[in-house]
Amino acid sequence: MSNSTKIVNVVTEYYRIPLPEQMGDAKHGIHTHFEVPIVRIILENGSEGIGYTYTGGIGGRAICNMIEYDLKPYLLGQDASCVEKLWEEMNWKIHYVGRGGIASFAISAIDIALWDLRAKKAGEPLWKLLGGANNSTKAYAGAIDLNFPMDKLLNNIQGYLDQGFRAVKIKLGQERLEEDIERVAAVRNLIGPDVVFMVDANMKWTIETAIKAAKLLEPYNLLWLEEPTIPEDYEGYRRISQEGGLAIAGGENLHTIYEFQNMISRGHLDFPQPDASNIGGITGWVKVAQLAYAHNLPVCTHGMQELHVSLMSAMSHAAYMEVHSFPIDKYTTRPLVLENGRAVAPDTPGTGVEFRWDLLQEFKTSF
Amino acid sequence: MSNSTKIVNVVTEYYRIPLPEQMGDAKHGIHTHFEVPIVRIILENGSEGIGYTYTGGIGGRAICNMIEYDLKPYLLGQDASCVEKLWEEMNWKIHYVGRGGIASFAISAIDIALWDLRAKKAGEPLWKLLGGANNSTKAYAGAIDLNFPMDKLLNNIQGYLDQGFRAVKIKLGQERLEEDIERVAAVRNLIGPDVVFMVDANMKWTIETAIKAAKLLEPYNLLWLEEPTIPEDYEGYRRISQEGGLAIAGGENLHTIYEFQNMISRGHLDFPQPDASNIGGITGWVKVAQLAYAHNLPVCTHGMQELHVSLMSAMSHAAYMEVHSFPIDKYTTRPLVLENGRAVAPDTPGTGVEFRWDLLQEFKTSF
Repeated sequence: MSNSTKIVNVVTEYYRIPLPEQMGDAKHGIHTHFEVPIVRIILENGSEGIGYTYTGGIGGRAICNMIEYDLKPYLLGQDASCVEKLWEEMNWKIHYVGRGGIASFAISAIDIALWDLRAKKAGEPLWKLLGGANNSTKAYAGAIDLNFPMDKLLNNIQGYLDQGFRAVKIKLGQERLEEDIERVAAVRNLIGPDVVFMVDANMKWTIETAIKAAKLLEPYNLLWLEEPTIPEDYEGYRRISQEGGLAIAGGENLHTIYEFQNMISRGHLDFPQPDASNIGGITGWVKVAQLAYAHNLPVCTHGMQELHVSLMSAMSHAAYMEVHSFPIDKYTTRPLVLENGRAVAPDTPGTGVEFRWDLLQEFKTSF
Repeated sequence: MSNSTKIVNVVTEYYRIPLPEQMGDAKHGIHTHFEVPIVRIILENGSEGIGYTYTGGIGGRAICNMIEYDLKPYLLGQDASCVEKLWEEMNWKIHYVGRGGIASFAISAIDIALWDLRAKKAGEPLWKLLGGANNSTKAYAGAIDLNFPMDKLLNNIQGYLDQGFRAVKIKLGQERLEEDIERVAAVRNLIGPDVVFMVDANMKWTIETAIKAAKLLEPYNLLWLEEPTIPEDYEGYRRISQEGGLAIAGGENLHTIYEFQNMISRGHLDFPQPDASNIGGITGWVKVAQLAYAHNLPVCTHGMQELHVSLMSAMSHAAYMEVHSFPIDKYTTRPLVLENGRAVAPDTPGTGVEFRWDLLQEFKTSF
């Protein structure tokens, strides 16, 4: 049998999955579905790598079309082993319509499939192949609860504590800032002083409002304030940090390495949160993690915990991994493993993410 | 008959058109086709607006899919008259997979259709509706000639002079910098001292090479050096300007208002070149033109001259409009009108861009 790692096929599939209940945040509106574009890369030697990305219900078909019509023709015949070369060339291939947006999601799905192949070939789990600092990482539950009434908000947080989480995050961005503060006070009262607590404004605020909010939030011992305003306003982030006095997190809307570079060096981030599903896959995520290291910053994540658990475990400078609310655990063979508040990485060679095709099948959609 | 400007249908069409010859630049590689996604917006009162965007052969299907599946459902039932409201809400609707890239192209096509409706309803040509500073604008011929041998390069430039152009641009970025300088010297020798001359490196260079090149180019009296390096390196652009001593142009790869804002305020641009086909349509282009005005900068363009002629003519601070090499004139009812080196705007109500459907038909492709 051939040992060739030449790419002989790239198969794209599109899954559109309804959420069990609608979820809302301050600027992205209501989510009713999440989308999972999945890519299978097949080599001449018969091995297959699986990669994927996510959206909150918008853009999935555009992502699949870019993979199928713009990236697949380039990939066929390439050597799958040269992952970083392929990443660089894919970025330039679609540069004019790229640099973030749909292109970053499309490249992410492909890159993750290439890393799945690389790790399978090496016979290593990702957490070891990428560094091996640990086989587990600190984790927090990230709720999408802006529209929950107070009793549901508190019940939801209690549920996370019951599952074993020792860190939780809620959404801010109510019409009245006072209501945000009341909700933070109530959650801190519920969880007590020792549970780690973060908040996320999903870009809702102006700079002045964010500074005012940060000062009002000071008594509640928050680990971070996430995305207080739009991700392009580098100077705004710097001012919110300096004048507001809270640590700042962000990254789910920074979709190129350069956006992180500019935000870190010209704006301000205490907790960079790259997401391998929208920053160019594992190759992109590692580049941001190394950028954070060079700036003496820890690395965090957004979403995609079933994969990020391996990336974060690998890193000596990992802080907190988000465990997102999209119910992906229902569709994989290995739901989240939580031990003493830490998420444990899978030990299987490859990404360690295996889908339940039997359950996904009914959500497969043409694109 | 109803007077309602409610949107009742949005029809997307995808045209993939082969180029008469392959064209190449320093970092985008070889172009064999250009793509024209076209959007028809139909109102309850029966009127129809036509909008469109372009690519250099990559991404067209993803653009069409985003319009069809992610933006059309939002647009149906909206009032087409409230153009800037729709622009803002479209940007937020696809924000997580947007902020540049495919999303900017998709919104551009829709926004241009909305402006076509707005101008038709007003009974005004765009050049008047948007400001009316002039009904014509200075224009230059932008060649895609990096791979042309010297004799073909010079013949091509002579052809532009024969057509009446009084300003020309060539591509730089040869393997040897000396060869770039030789080509610039030969073109300046051909066109004489009075024809305006620009050069475009298409992001090929490092900062050090760009500074060196700018110094070597100084004797040839160039109006600008375009895109010397990648569009994210704000500090790099500042250094190239200060240390190289040439005026700097750029914008075709700045696909959000914020990228222009950051490049102008933190980097350096003497000639901002927004492109209505990738900056969010006419609404996005006007926002950048106003940003330029506030920074005491002229406004220029990239590509799409059949539409930009109306936008540039409208503006009191217009500098030079690019006349791009893609052969769009073959597929519209009104090819470029050049008088005394200036491009003349159409006087018909609407965008003034009318396609030759009979000639486009054979390139219509499913998406």
